[in-house]
Amino acid sequence: MPSSTPSVPSATDAARAAAPVLAALPPGERGALLRALAGVLHDHTDDLVALADEETHLGETRLYGEVLRTRVQLQMFAEIAEEGSALDVMIDPADADAVLASRPDVRRMLVPLGPVAVFTASNFPFAFSVLGGDTASALAAGCPVVVKAHEGHPRLTDLTVDLAAEVLPPGALTVVHGREAGQALVTDPVIQAVGFTGSTAGGRALFDLAAGRPDPVPFYGELGSLNPVVVTPAALAARGPELVEGFTGSVTRSQGQLCTKPGLLFLPEGHGLDAPLARAFGAAGAGPLLGPWIADAYTATLAELAAHPAVHAVTPGAAGPDPAPALLTVTAHDLRAHPELLRECFGPASVLVTYASADDLLATLRTLPGTLTAAVHGVEGEPADVETARGVWSVLRAGRLIWNEWPTGVAVTRAMHHGGPWPATTSPLHTSVGATAVARWQRPVAYQNLPDALLPEPLRDANPWGVPQRTGR
Amino acid sequence: MPSSTPSVPSATDAARAAAPVLAALPPGERGALLRALAGVLHDHTDDLVALADEETHLGETRLYGEVLRTRVQLQMFAEIAEEGSALDVMIDPADADAVLASRPDVRRMLVPLGPVAVFTASNFPFAFSVLGGDTASALAAGCPVVVKAHEGHPRLTDLTVDLAAEVLPPGALTVVHGREAGQALVTDPVIQAVGFTGSTAGGRALFDLAAGRPDPVPFYGELGSLNPVVVTPAALAARGPELVEGFTGSVTRSQGQLCTKPGLLFLPEGHGLDAPLARAFGAAGAGPLLGPWIADAYTATLAELAAHPAVHAVTPGAAGPDPAPALLTVTAHDLRAHPELLRECFGPASVLVTYASADDLLATLRTLPGTLTAAVHGVEGEPADVETARGVWSVLRAGRLIWNEWPTGVAVTRAMHHGGPWPATTSPLHTSVGATAVARWQRPVAYQNLPDALLPEPLRDANPWGVPQRTGR
Repeated sequence: MPSSTPSVPSATDAARAAAPVLAALPPGERGALLRALAGVLHDHTDDLVALADEETHLGETRLYGEVLRTRVQLQMFAEIAEEGSALDVMIDPADADAVLASRPDVRRMLVPLGPVAVFTASNFPFAFSVLGGDTASALAAGCPVVVKAHEGHPRLTDLTVDLAAEVLPPGALTVVHGREAGQALVTDPVIQAVGFTGSTAGGRALFDLAAGRPDPVPFYGELGSLNPVVVTPAALAARGPELVEGFTGSVTRSQGQLCTKPGLLFLPEGHGLDAPLARAFGAAGAGPLLGPWIADAYTATLAELAAHPAVHAVTPGAAGPDPAPALLTVTAHDLRAHPELLRECFGPASVLVTYASADDLLATLRTLPGTLTAAVHGVEGEPADVETARGVWSVLRAGRLIWNEWPTGVAVTRAMHHGGPWPATTSPLHTSVGATAVARWQRPVAYQNLPDALLPEPLRDANPWGVPQRTGR
Repeated sequence: MPSSTPSVPSATDAARAAAPVLAALPPGERGALLRALAGVLHDHTDDLVALADEETHLGETRLYGEVLRTRVQLQMFAEIAEEGSALDVMIDPADADAVLASRPDVRRMLVPLGPVAVFTASNFPFAFSVLGGDTASALAAGCPVVVKAHEGHPRLTDLTVDLAAEVLPPGALTVVHGREAGQALVTDPVIQAVGFTGSTAGGRALFDLAAGRPDPVPFYGELGSLNPVVVTPAALAARGPELVEGFTGSVTRSQGQLCTKPGLLFLPEGHGLDAPLARAFGAAGAGPLLGPWIADAYTATLAELAAHPAVHAVTPGAAGPDPAPALLTVTAHDLRAHPELLRECFGPASVLVTYASADDLLATLRTLPGTLTAAVHGVEGEPADVETARGVWSVLRAGRLIWNEWPTGVAVTRAMHHGGPWPATTSPLHTSVGATAVARWQRPVAYQNLPDALLPEPLRDANPWGVPQRTGR
């Protein structure tokens, strides 16, 4: 921890002081801050990527791509801040003849919640870290951010915060380190909401702290997910080799350390892909994990799954800090008989589930918990596949439904939803990617009968900020 | 409890069976259900009001008005369901030239959460009860509702549920009675969210149950509020008698049993209104409270406040089941020195707070907890009053800011926000009144690369349901 790192109270004090400054920024200036942050990433990409690779072992190709992605995210939230769409302005003029009684002028917009905390993710040192989607959407909302650094990339975190500080108002972005600091942050009365990306156990513990405060605050935890993928018999027949290649890439990319990694692949019985899958997984090769906390959990979870009597190895892979990808297999019948197998194994492993019939498939899918994604590979125009896809999506509870693509590689676009029912997240209503990520950091306020001089700019008739105004009857 | 009242498991089983039926209803049919419920209230108003008056003592005038209000609410949510605006559809077409990588077609909408629980309020037997805003917005979202009946109007609750059942699909609306049933409902795995209107203590206990579930679910509790009202010196000079009349009406209407009742009236020192206020409160007269659970809490809270050494009585009122309105007074200095005085006293009582200066006023307001409303009475165009109002609203955290009106009488209109930071509610992001009340019962789902035949109707290019579609770049 560098000597410049503040304590939790000094970080939250600075955030509290910055809150009215950020809240008062007109859309153009709020957007300019976000664009300046994208510029900081652009100008220092080489240094940042070198440090990130040293700390995370994710490789330069992936990390250069992630910096670009993070810049695109910042630019998207800059656009949203600039156009004012996230203020969600609604204006209902006074109505002397309303059915119930003379109705006053009522105008409503979303205002920033105040200082918020963001826990960075070990597996996305840029896109879900200091200047990632949580921070970008919080700043777009007008909220100062106190970052809790992940132990996996502390120096990158400090460098990013230092660079960002050069273009932000004082207190708008600070960082704290360490597990105790994280807990203190979640329970600090200044903090009005928390964003988190990480494990189910860690997220649940912090969610409980946030909900247990004397004044409970929203906790947005993006946790684990099994991300089931279903392949229909017709798709298997039509595109077996392509499916092997796509699945292997999706499981092994970034060494499987992605929350959208497909953890369950449902194939028809007698699929005949064991050998090609074992070859493809073998060819993907070994590689280092993010750090010992991942390697230990991966090794233990994989060993427990592999040792289960209902489970067999298609290819056993290898455990440890530098594992080769593993593929296990189980029947759909056995999977639903053994819910203890429904565990995320974070790392380069997946489970192939063989199903005997559509009924067998659906009966097993019904037992799955909430997930971030649910994918179906079928043949377009094939009536049986349309029916299968509808059935699959009616029994699964997922945040994103995918047809004939793989769940990894979350597109950065306004309509994207990255979230889902528990245990995928702690808050099924919210997303950490896409335009509506901003709404996590805002609360509505209604303004009744205010003269123009007292109304905030977005609610005035003259609309000096030029924001979208929905005017009712 | 009538013999027809189901147990919690049978109510939630019925709701589970109804969920896909409601979710599949096209906008027109969903709206028609809500209009049919408004029709039920219309057709049975006399019987319902008579029973409600017997159980709540709120008086026929108020109750006839409340039935009308409830019908208007149902009609508003019917319109919202019919137009499909609450689905919040966003469509981002595929982009082969996206900066990061070829981007798939991504479409997003809000889907119903599933069966939800609604706890009815004792003080609004119609507008916040069986067919009140929580139920109407949940049905508009496509969610079946299990109502937890308040002990204050059990027969009215059963009659309303029975009448509603005649026009709803089976299982769409059921009712359970009793404290234990309420707790079982909040922790029932079928229930996906909870709406509650009531006391801070009761709401907190249920919130803790919802957050403590193995699978936590959202809990929307609308709890207590102090609803401060500030009068500037200029307004006092200009409109003293009018303020006395307005304040007295707002405190004593419905015997003060409104969550928006002004609990704190800030007047300049030497205001000279003690005598007129005492006369007005005296003239308002005694009247019955909703029931013994209110009378007991009112009597105890009022006695504790009145006995505080910093507090004096402008008019002591009377306690018990049939109290005369009470007005206490304290200086702003003493109020901020004694945070134990910052308690809601649910019933016909309020506290007049005298302030010596704008600084004295703001220093005290800073100590207030979150509230549903914050009102300022000033003189329009008076620069000092504009400054005072801005100062007041910058230090208070409230869901609705009001100029020159009183907080009671929440207008039924789309832009209305009825909510606020803790302890006003358990969820500052959400509202129980207004168009966005529907969002409490929905979660986003993204659909990636789906052919038209697999997309839900609102996301199809042909837009067969004619809903608003926001299409991106």
